[in-house]
Amino acid sequence: MTTNRYQAGLAKLTEIDGEAGHKVIESLEGVCPDLGKYTIEFPFGDIYSRPGLDLRSREIATVAALTALGHCAPQLKVHVNAALNVGCTADEIKEVVLQMAVYAGFPAALNGMFVVKEVLAERDLL
Amino acid sequence: MTTNRYQAGLAKLTEIDGEAGHKVIESLEGVCPDLGKYTIEFPFGDIYSRPGLDLRSREIATVAALTALGHCAPQLKVHVNAALNVGCTADEIKEVVLQMAVYAGFPAALNGMFVVKEVLAERDLL
Amino acid sequence: MTTNRYQAGLAKLTEIDGEAGHKVIESLEGVCPDLGKYTIEFPFGDIYSRPGLDLRSREIATVAALTALGHCAPQLKVHVNAALNVGCTADEIKEVVLQMAVYAGFPAALNGMFVVKEVLAERDLL
Amino acid sequence: MTTNRYQAGLAKLTEIDGEAGHKVIESLEGVCPDLGKYTIEFPFGDIYSRPGLDLRSREIATVAALTALGHCAPQLKVHVNAALNVGCTADEIKEVVLQMAVYAGFPAALNGMFVVKEVLAERDLL
Amino acid sequence: MTTNRYQAGLAKLTEIDGEAGHKVIESLEGVCPDLGKYTIEFPFGDIYSRPGLDLRSREIATVAALTALGHCAPQLKVHVNAALNVGCTADEIKEVVLQMAVYAGFPAALNGMFVVKEVLAERDLL
Amino acid sequence: MTTNRYQAGLAKLTEIDGEAGHKVIESLEGVCPDLGKYTIEFPFGDIYSRPGLDLRSREIATVAALTALGHCAPQLKVHVNAALNVGCTADEIKEVVLQMAVYAGFPAALNGMFVVKEVLAERDLL
Repeated sequence: MTTNRYQAGLAKLTEIDGEAGHKVIESLEGVCPDLGKYTIEFPFGDIYSRPGLDLRSREIATVAALTALGHCAPQLKVHVNAALNVGCTADEIKEVVLQMAVYAGFPAALNGMFVVKEVLAERDLL
Repeated sequence: MTTNRYQAGLAKLTEIDGEAGHKVIESLEGVCPDLGKYTIEFPFGDIYSRPGLDLRSREIATVAALTALGHCAPQLKVHVNAALNVGCTADEIKEVVLQMAVYAGFPAALNGMFVVKEVLAERDLL
Repeated sequence: MTTNRYQAGLAKLTEIDGEAGHKVIESLEGVCPDLGKYTIEFPFGDIYSRPGLDLRSREIATVAALTALGHCAPQLKVHVNAALNVGCTADEIKEVVLQMAVYAGFPAALNGMFVVKEVLAERDLL
Repeated sequence: MTTNRYQAGLAKLTEIDGEAGHKVIESLEGVCPDLGKYTIEFPFGDIYSRPGLDLRSREIATVAALTALGHCAPQLKVHVNAALNVGCTADEIKEVVLQMAVYAGFPAALNGMFVVKEVLAERDLL
Repeated sequence: MTTNRYQAGLAKLTEIDGEAGHKVIESLEGVCPDLGKYTIEFPFGDIYSRPGLDLRSREIATVAALTALGHCAPQLKVHVNAALNVGCTADEIKEVVLQMAVYAGFPAALNGMFVVKEVLAERDLL
Repeated sequence: MTTNRYQAGLAKLTEIDGEAGHKVIESLEGVCPDLGKYTIEFPFGDIYSRPGLDLRSREIATVAALTALGHCAPQLKVHVNAALNVGCTADEIKEVVLQMAVYAGFPAALNGMFVVKEVLAERDLL
């Protein structure tokens, strides 16, 4: 039963996050594999698989929220990569993070932009 | 000189937020009109006027962040309206708020959805 | 398929939150019933149904987190009721909220305690 | 023994917050008087009674933090009054709240400013 | 006089946090020993010494809150150890952290779980 | 025209943050120089340049807010330095951070104090 959501979620995770997503799941194996299973099933199997919003818009929403929350640097790094994977340009991602200065303050935007810088450097996009 | 940013910001505020945006600015007049001036100049004159990201994507980012932060219900209400004004559908906005359950938890998503419900009711879109 | 998680979640929601939980789900019907469905399936069908921790401990964790986060008053109200429903005493709940002064500051603890007061008054436990 | 901290705290609470502080303590009596006791002893008996920083600076710090946190409107209201009581001018308080737009975003600053407006109206200072 | 709270707090800190708690206090000595003193007196001397809630439940509340707040990794590490010290099992602690995905989102739960993993590895419990 | 705000902001940034402020701006050059430009123009050109509050009080407000928010360690480091630069004593800064235990909890105050310790060590003020 769970299998359908898990399979759909795993495919969506691979499509969006690639290797980085799988590494997160693997790193949970020794401590709480069920958190890995739920991460595949609910966010990816249920939410990102929904038809009502394109993946590019979904990643814009996620990058915005993770930048604004401020305590999610590892997840922001995964989703800056994900945003690039699903068709956002580097400039669009920078605009989203920049805009967060308005809603969450300059420190959140600055810390978010340094995560963007790190990802772009790793992908030779800087 | 500030005039240019102020004029551009006021036009952008009117385009995005309509009457609701002007009400926020007016409500500051008796206490701190300069906060109203900065709200027009920086978010709207500087950020929303930038060419690198379309307004629909900008509002998706803002609705996501305000839902995730959780303590911004009045601003979320303004920006659910703004998202509708710049071309997001009600269903797309619901998807963004729903997705925040993943990143900020179910309470933030639930409280955000009740703001969406209020706006849609006011606009006879429910 | 989803049916099993949904049925298990609905039974758990009824056991823990009673009528208040159902009201939250119903209030989503006009705007985003899928958020209601996920609320039943993931928190209640998946998490609260897990065997590794008793419901009393789970509600202590939830009351602590919702008090500390500070922007979740409606959900805290539901879970103060839930904590009472699954066997926490009013005094134990007060201790948990009081303890949050240490981790999230006095304002969060004070605002949480006023939610406790409201619930206890409604249940004639004050 | 606790008595000393309690007595010193009560005097400091009265000096800073006046009647509003006492109302907070009283409102806890029916539900958790110990939270009231700790509120008097630790923040007021221990912290605000320390000699290393003047009360005006302490209230500037508190107004800034409560505005930035965003989920502490009732406490912000008490401390806008407190800031006025210990010698801050209305304009100085507005500057502190306005400055929070930089560090916590415009929504936090706007919501904080509306609390300032409410207090100034109640004190006929608008 | 403070002596009583300090002595009781120090004993409670030793009981709960062991060496890790003492290291936190020591690390404050060069910069602000009074913060160390208050940490012993208020959280440990006042709150954790109260009779109304067992230490196991108190640590469940603390682990939940620190995971949900998201910006308290060093303190979460101390309190995952503390929870183990006062009788929580590793599996119970994992359940608490996992449950925070519901209330504070998956990033907070994931980051919390990696702290749990680190502690369990250090204690050869993985 | 923006030039005036930029020039005034750059002078104020230099006065307050010294070399550390310039390093933040420079580190943005490869990824999003406009965020650097806005950081100079809005916080420093607009806000810190306002006459209604002295710089010492402004830095007290900023140190308080950044400590309370909890996810802004790099910015807190810059502003502990800034507070010292504009005339706050080390003891006053410690008082502000200590006071945040009341409003944002002990973990935020502890993490803030360790940033203070780091800055004071770098400036041989410990």
